[in-house]
Amino acid sequence: MSDKKKIFIIYAHPEPRSLNGSLKDFAVTFLRSQGHEVQVSDLYAMKWRAEADGRDFPQRDPHERLVYNAASRDAFINGTQAPEIIAEQEKLMWADAVIMQFPLWWYAMPAILKGWVDRVYARRFAYGVGNKGYTRFGEGNLKGKRAMLAVTVGPEREHYAPRAVHGYIDDLLFPITHGILYYPGMDVLPSCVFFKAAAVPPDGFDAVAAQYRARLETLFTADPIPFRAQNGGDYDENFHLKPGLEGSKTGFAIHQR
Amino acid sequence: MSDKKKIFIIYAHPEPRSLNGSLKDFAVTFLRSQGHEVQVSDLYAMKWRAEADGRDFPQRDPHERLVYNAASRDAFINGTQAPEIIAEQEKLMWADAVIMQFPLWWYAMPAILKGWVDRVYARRFAYGVGNKGYTRFGEGNLKGKRAMLAVTVGPEREHYAPRAVHGYIDDLLFPITHGILYYPGMDVLPSCVFFKAAAVPPDGFDAVAAQYRARLETLFTADPIPFRAQNGGDYDENFHLKPGLEGSKTGFAIHQR
Repeated sequence: MSDKKKIFIIYAHPEPRSLNGSLKDFAVTFLRSQGHEVQVSDLYAMKWRAEADGRDFPQRDPHERLVYNAASRDAFINGTQAPEIIAEQEKLMWADAVIMQFPLWWYAMPAILKGWVDRVYARRFAYGVGNKGYTRFGEGNLKGKRAMLAVTVGPEREHYAPRAVHGYIDDLLFPITHGILYYPGMDVLPSCVFFKAAAVPPDGFDAVAAQYRARLETLFTADPIPFRAQNGGDYDENFHLKPGLEGSKTGFAIHQR
Repeated sequence: MSDKKKIFIIYAHPEPRSLNGSLKDFAVTFLRSQGHEVQVSDLYAMKWRAEADGRDFPQRDPHERLVYNAASRDAFINGTQAPEIIAEQEKLMWADAVIMQFPLWWYAMPAILKGWVDRVYARRFAYGVGNKGYTRFGEGNLKGKRAMLAVTVGPEREHYAPRAVHGYIDDLLFPITHGILYYPGMDVLPSCVFFKAAAVPPDGFDAVAAQYRARLETLFTADPIPFRAQNGGDYDENFHLKPGLEGSKTGFAIHQR
């Protein structure tokens, strides 16, 4: 069928029987039922190593001082990255859409997923692309793909409101949506956040799954977050938002139209 | 001497010969020269496991469904956490000041350090304290201690200005300063950020170390970031900043006076 797409889910939860695990299973089943191809990197099941270090570059002289981004670039160019890193990059290139699914721990992704980003996002692959490395935020090697976060959060939505003490959920996720997904060029959809995840009763799963389903159904049609492209005219030569745009406001929200 | 203090440095860089590694060595030497006691958790050297999972609770039934925060609470209360977790908690309790030192990777801490937080910050130790767990953001088990981030950042300061495309450095670090250090009650100093870290020439180290030294000298005297205490009267019953405070502004900056 013509609308068959390829979807890559990066999933990070230690317990398959958790709400998060059930939602991942639901997403895979639902997307396949729509005719899509799905690949999942279940980081805990894969025993993904989170710590970025010299082992990521097996052919490098281990006695030499490690400059991680330079080693990353060299290994990427020479095809000598650790095989598990290459495999994840291939899944990213294969995908039409990328879903990162995880529980929010300490206002950020779990370490195992951060370690996926730290290691898979090699220089020249995800950053350091183009003139001076400035091909980013709206353009890059992952341009043309869509991305979405699917995040379980323990407390209720009100506790992550724009003026809540925890911080506004969109701001907390901005370093990921903007800094990790939009950076290498992907169009990022509004995050699918499952609040009060710790309090879903046994008979409450269908309602939560329905929320996910609605977002999965529109994965390729919904409007992305209107982040401003770095090289689209809104930023000056220091990559500051030009005077007048958003008044003199600050805060992450100024980076979307 | 009366002003002798205890300082705990949590350090996360894979290369001891890096700028970050040299700065850690400098801090240890300088603080000891002032008569302070220093403990360092060198996470890479310790081969710290980043992935939070059932191994953190060795006496738990491994066939039971893992609810991490409940298992964390039970193991904390019963004294059955993994020994490496207990050791880190003891260092935190021992310290008068805590320094987290790391390179900024993808707008956040390296995975190995995130995994230190995910695992060491047990329920009832760092969260879930007091009535309904609402003893936090300005009070908690680490109250009375000071904390500071020491962060190396590749690009120049201008690229992390308040309206820069990367995001303002204070906002990027807010989930750590506010969400990880202030949450369990520590007084958090303004972050010590070493910009352009990738471009420090061999003869430039002394200038960078001097920046650190000035901050280490005032570790116990400088004014902390004036974050608003959750239970200090500025927030309503939903933990929203009360109407009128900071006008109707949003963004992380509203959470400091």
